[in-house]
Amino acid sequence: MNHPIQVLAISGSLRAKSTNTGLLNYAQAQAPAGIEITIADLKELPFYNADLTTKPSAVQNLLTQLAAADALLLACPEYNYSMAPALKNALDWASREPNNQLLSGKPVAIMGSGGGMGSSRAQYHLRQVCVFLNLHPLNKPEVFCNAFANTFDQNGVLIDERIQGLIREQLLSLQAWVEQLRK
Amino acid sequence: MNHPIQVLAISGSLRAKSTNTGLLNYAQAQAPAGIEITIADLKELPFYNADLTTKPSAVQNLLTQLAAADALLLACPEYNYSMAPALKNALDWASREPNNQLLSGKPVAIMGSGGGMGSSRAQYHLRQVCVFLNLHPLNKPEVFCNAFANTFDQNGVLIDERIQGLIREQLLSLQAWVEQLRK
Amino acid sequence: MNHPIQVLAISGSLRAKSTNTGLLNYAQAQAPAGIEITIADLKELPFYNADLTTKPSAVQNLLTQLAAADALLLACPEYNYSMAPALKNALDWASREPNNQLLSGKPVAIMGSGGGMGSSRAQYHLRQVCVFLNLHPLNKPEVFCNAFANTFDQNGVLIDERIQGLIREQLLSLQAWVEQLRK
Amino acid sequence: MNHPIQVLAISGSLRAKSTNTGLLNYAQAQAPAGIEITIADLKELPFYNADLTTKPSAVQNLLTQLAAADALLLACPEYNYSMAPALKNALDWASREPNNQLLSGKPVAIMGSGGGMGSSRAQYHLRQVCVFLNLHPLNKPEVFCNAFANTFDQNGVLIDERIQGLIREQLLSLQAWVEQLRK
Repeated sequence: MNHPIQVLAISGSLRAKSTNTGLLNYAQAQAPAGIEITIADLKELPFYNADLTTKPSAVQNLLTQLAAADALLLACPEYNYSMAPALKNALDWASREPNNQLLSGKPVAIMGSGGGMGSSRAQYHLRQVCVFLNLHPLNKPEVFCNAFANTFDQNGVLIDERIQGLIREQLLSLQAWVEQLRK
Repeated sequence: MNHPIQVLAISGSLRAKSTNTGLLNYAQAQAPAGIEITIADLKELPFYNADLTTKPSAVQNLLTQLAAADALLLACPEYNYSMAPALKNALDWASREPNNQLLSGKPVAIMGSGGGMGSSRAQYHLRQVCVFLNLHPLNKPEVFCNAFANTFDQNGVLIDERIQGLIREQLLSLQAWVEQLRK
Repeated sequence: MNHPIQVLAISGSLRAKSTNTGLLNYAQAQAPAGIEITIADLKELPFYNADLTTKPSAVQNLLTQLAAADALLLACPEYNYSMAPALKNALDWASREPNNQLLSGKPVAIMGSGGGMGSSRAQYHLRQVCVFLNLHPLNKPEVFCNAFANTFDQNGVLIDERIQGLIREQLLSLQAWVEQLRK
Repeated sequence: MNHPIQVLAISGSLRAKSTNTGLLNYAQAQAPAGIEITIADLKELPFYNADLTTKPSAVQNLLTQLAAADALLLACPEYNYSMAPALKNALDWASREPNNQLLSGKPVAIMGSGGGMGSSRAQYHLRQVCVFLNLHPLNKPEVFCNAFANTFDQNGVLIDERIQGLIREQLLSLQAWVEQLRK
């Protein structure tokens, strides 16, 4: 194949200087040849509500981005030992399309920052969600980032070299996983 | 003790005819002597965002209701094998008060409708959240409600007698649990 | 490819008339063309103990069977809301081989009987184990079997037609999954 | 109350120099006034099998110890992101007594060593088991111990002062929790 893998990255944190978004910013800037990463913006996405009869434009934008994506990169914060509602809500909106066609069968890489255990508790909940959505999350490497003093600068820019290396490694694994899953 | 137990009930579904809210409506109407149930309204609650420097009024209202509650009753929908964002978000907002004082140590009862397994997958995620929040969820009876044709009427009113009985039983267990935990 | 897919099936129940083993017996008898299923025997497998310096023969037999398998089929009972120790122990033994070479990268199908929710609570724990072991479990169809009066006969033989159909469907999905993952 | 709280401690690791057993040994030696800790021995406990018609003596011994216990202290290793089979198996055996009378309602404290995340992934699975068994696990403090070079000596004796302090703190919390739950 010749065209680059299109990856849609989604951060569960809405904060401007979010460390989770910081992980995605690093991934986007350092993506290996053959991968292009777009970062979704969830700020205007409303809560899913089955009573809504029209899709707000923020929802439509997200769905359009998902339709164009070969794979997903999810930055999964941990709030109170589970997922951030904004990330879960984005997946819930996407799941309502006919036959789950925007998500079903897509490869996924998961990373996350915070939570004392590097967001691992939230990431395992997210993996259970992937079962229903028929997403295929990468097993390894898992990216668990604790937001210590020297992990990010004050603007949320990732400066920890170990985590930087882990992210680059994960993107290469995602690339191989996309190619392996391609029928 | 003489004053009734004040229970704040929170439904994770925002839909007007939600079956999860239907469970809470039944609980409120049939609460045993000694329990008073107030149902929170999450419709205007925004996503938690650490950048917000003031609390929106919907948040303040929820916090005021939580401060007055002796116990919680959580109706936990299951979306895509995990919790509804609106319920998780309400708990996330509440958890940011100093020393987690609005939640820590409170008894909780959990019920839920939907999801093929009666929302059980989401409820176990919610129970993990309770560990961090130092909430004390009731172990039994668990209330797993599948929303079949004759479980709710078309307005979301619970009409299944088995589930009705289970809810009444859970409320009595919650009452005993509140009393047991009272120091 | 021409040679049939070799599947090693492992039941977490040691009982002679186990319904979980009954699911595997049905799968073995009804395997579609292109799949051959061998059922492991865990009866003599001891608990893993790092102090053991030699591998008991039951362990060695299991490892030999795993080495020959292209994929796994796991029958996952639910005991007290989690996995049966015998199944987990078999995976633990296998995981100690150098570089996890007997398990890493293998496709897996999961089924289970019992537990009130068709063993689903145990199956999600098993899926978390698969992350570490770098196993690739099939997302769908999930096989959740409640052992009601007419699901199995008194010898543990599966007689429920819906579950029979689900197992045949899962085996076809496993076959496609093995082929998709083949690099 | 005047008689000391009787705590039965169970380690999921069978290894002689197990770090998980090392946590229990420390707890036993440093138990605060008013708590007496007995450590169970699982080495001879067979896998639960419903076909067994008599209880092996190792099972009977465990059941006798459980009957005498006011509370449990569980050392929960993490093998492959979930519980050690030996610990789960001990709880499974205990759960088969009439009305779950040996476990139902008992307070529990959980600690664990290993697994990269201090056994946290296994501990959350164990907490789900506690729901069914109607055990009441302490929420805080959680004891997550990573077995680094200076955490234990070569005989599995705990020498890390931070973890030592955490264990003493947990035992005091368990004592308070037992008293709070006493009806």
